[in-house]
Amino acid sequence: MKYGIVGHTGRMGQELQKVFGEAGCSLVLTSNKQGGTCDTSPDVIVDFSSFDALPGTVGLCRKHRSGLVMGTTALKAQHFELLQDLGCELPVVQSFNFAIGVNVLKMILRDYAPFFQDWDMEISETHHNKKKDAPSGTALLLQDATGRDCPTHSLRLGGVPGDHSVQFGNEGEVVTFTHRALSRTVFALGALRAAHFIASAPAGLYSFEDVLETIRLSKDS
Amino acid sequence: MKYGIVGHTGRMGQELQKVFGEAGCSLVLTSNKQGGTCDTSPDVIVDFSSFDALPGTVGLCRKHRSGLVMGTTALKAQHFELLQDLGCELPVVQSFNFAIGVNVLKMILRDYAPFFQDWDMEISETHHNKKKDAPSGTALLLQDATGRDCPTHSLRLGGVPGDHSVQFGNEGEVVTFTHRALSRTVFALGALRAAHFIASAPAGLYSFEDVLETIRLSKDS
Amino acid sequence: MKYGIVGHTGRMGQELQKVFGEAGCSLVLTSNKQGGTCDTSPDVIVDFSSFDALPGTVGLCRKHRSGLVMGTTALKAQHFELLQDLGCELPVVQSFNFAIGVNVLKMILRDYAPFFQDWDMEISETHHNKKKDAPSGTALLLQDATGRDCPTHSLRLGGVPGDHSVQFGNEGEVVTFTHRALSRTVFALGALRAAHFIASAPAGLYSFEDVLETIRLSKDS
Amino acid sequence: MKYGIVGHTGRMGQELQKVFGEAGCSLVLTSNKQGGTCDTSPDVIVDFSSFDALPGTVGLCRKHRSGLVMGTTALKAQHFELLQDLGCELPVVQSFNFAIGVNVLKMILRDYAPFFQDWDMEISETHHNKKKDAPSGTALLLQDATGRDCPTHSLRLGGVPGDHSVQFGNEGEVVTFTHRALSRTVFALGALRAAHFIASAPAGLYSFEDVLETIRLSKDS
Repeated sequence: MKYGIVGHTGRMGQELQKVFGEAGCSLVLTSNKQGGTCDTSPDVIVDFSSFDALPGTVGLCRKHRSGLVMGTTALKAQHFELLQDLGCELPVVQSFNFAIGVNVLKMILRDYAPFFQDWDMEISETHHNKKKDAPSGTALLLQDATGRDCPTHSLRLGGVPGDHSVQFGNEGEVVTFTHRALSRTVFALGALRAAHFIASAPAGLYSFEDVLETIRLSKDS
Repeated sequence: MKYGIVGHTGRMGQELQKVFGEAGCSLVLTSNKQGGTCDTSPDVIVDFSSFDALPGTVGLCRKHRSGLVMGTTALKAQHFELLQDLGCELPVVQSFNFAIGVNVLKMILRDYAPFFQDWDMEISETHHNKKKDAPSGTALLLQDATGRDCPTHSLRLGGVPGDHSVQFGNEGEVVTFTHRALSRTVFALGALRAAHFIASAPAGLYSFEDVLETIRLSKDS
Repeated sequence: MKYGIVGHTGRMGQELQKVFGEAGCSLVLTSNKQGGTCDTSPDVIVDFSSFDALPGTVGLCRKHRSGLVMGTTALKAQHFELLQDLGCELPVVQSFNFAIGVNVLKMILRDYAPFFQDWDMEISETHHNKKKDAPSGTALLLQDATGRDCPTHSLRLGGVPGDHSVQFGNEGEVVTFTHRALSRTVFALGALRAAHFIASAPAGLYSFEDVLETIRLSKDS
Repeated sequence: MKYGIVGHTGRMGQELQKVFGEAGCSLVLTSNKQGGTCDTSPDVIVDFSSFDALPGTVGLCRKHRSGLVMGTTALKAQHFELLQDLGCELPVVQSFNFAIGVNVLKMILRDYAPFFQDWDMEISETHHNKKKDAPSGTALLLQDATGRDCPTHSLRLGGVPGDHSVQFGNEGEVVTFTHRALSRTVFALGALRAAHFIASAPAGLYSFEDVLETIRLSKDS
């Protein structure tokens, strides 16, 4: 697979190159605020940079007829409109969290939290001490999947990349769902999954859950 | 609800009386090897005693037109035939594990383990040091639900009632599903759920998963 | 060993009888608000009842020349004076927490927390949803042992008897100390240790740490 | 502080440069199989490379009158003799594990395991799936510190850098000591501590525990 990166010099840009490179993909396009390079048209363009870059990224996709993996956070309504339009022509995957495990837990909680409706529920998340927001966006995403309110506890400990745990307890038992990120690599691996999905997907605007469903279906067959 | 217990003097029999009593149910029939008592016909009979008792229990259900919650382990083919026959007349719930959380995890693993098919998988269970078998039946049940083989680790520590954890890991993340029994009460609460299910179910032989599905459906509506 | 219980009909009183009975001790004296019984003078009297009972308990110890294991919480200055006086004549062990593990962790944190002085620190505790105070007294006790302030998170989940965890993290590693109570039995087992200690101790007012030090010394020799 | 690295191009060599550089130390000497560079004499030389390099490293220390931080594993008797000799002239810190937390846990287990002598004990360790040995050297080190045999469980999960847990359980409680490495950075941070120790230590062969004791003493004062 030939791919391009918007924001190739950033920390996430470098992580993407490492993971895509180890998977045998060829980097054929790069782009950041200082300019860019292009050897040939990529199959997919990956952008985890900044919402400012999005209009330019959409232009590149149109020009090269490339699918898009969009991992930038803090997107607003006008950005989603651009992605929607692009999705009429090309396959686009957009998500705020590309960790596979977080997205599977989200699906599980959506499907199975009703069984725990009369149990107590608590969420804990632990992150490095430089993280400024609390609770984490992922904690909110997981809570949202359950459709319930609950206390959320934010621990800040050294360099922890990111742990999340959702717990349900009744008089006799406790069930815990835990996700632990080992490093930034998580998100690059998820982007790689999305890129492979795009390689064979028709035009459309997809979520990361659509990518995961395809993985499951292909394994079931 | 009026209920009966086969094996009412055993440890599990006493736990059942405590939990059903606190839920406002009336004990109207008891039975063990030494004999029994019967004030009136129960809506449901609960049996967590021994497979030896099963033919007698089935006879009591037929006589009183009572549904059956069957939690006895080590049942053999001939016992399942008896339960199958009884299920043609009356509602019967049979399971080897009445912890709600274990059964929900079983369903989750069956549905979602395919997402983790190329991740490493490890199971750990911790029980009190008097437990003789290893790995636990529940560890096997959870592994079976994933449809995969994996290493299983059995820790034996003091008086731990029973912890189970199923872990999946790839290069960048770890997802863990954990169940912790706080006491024997777990299983009595599950039996109470099954008894409530039986009160309004048509004749049939049900699993504990059928009971749980009903809980979910009633909550969705 | 012959022992007595003040508050023998309460939940803790019954737990004490179970644990001391299984250890081969003989209950020779009981006492509660309704009265009491006495077959013969006990070696030790155990009181986990209420601070109201303390003056009466001290009187019983004097009368029978019995040592005292005092596990009642919420003691005030005047109660400690009574215990101090009694300690001039007889061996007395007083503690707010008789779990061996909690007291060992307290000693460890006092001795080793200085190594983690420039690491982040977080305390979490999980208890049943009927517990009214937060954070738990034991969380405060553990924090106090470290000589540092830190965030404390209180989770309330079903019937959890009591988990405590103290975590230290820096850029590259996390160290966690965890205590998990499996049931009320913990505290009765600790009281039994204290009772054995008293059987051979000279007069004095002791903490549970003194009991534990003796265990270690006897094992070292 | 001016420092040198033997094996500066290896993975650990690069990690050391990152950590020492961020702490304001100046790299003034490098060495590997292909040769080396030397701007000026370093205060300390750090070697986490291979036991083959040790004689050369010792020679460099003598020549430059530099202290030594030796983190190479699989050292044999003759290597320890060389270090012993060097320790008569210069300060040398040798350890198989430079994670601060692991070494503190080792000290804690040595001091406090006697309290848990009649409790059950279990050790678990989780590492990435490319680790070839099991149990890990650190698991053996921790078990050794307790002076007891116990079952050890080795889980191999994706990219986990290294978790270790030592558990003690009796009828009523469980105490768990856990160490989690977040990355290779752990070991570089420990080497930095050892280098600072060396800067003011007299000649001698020291363990990493000696380094840690100094940290504690300086904090107590």
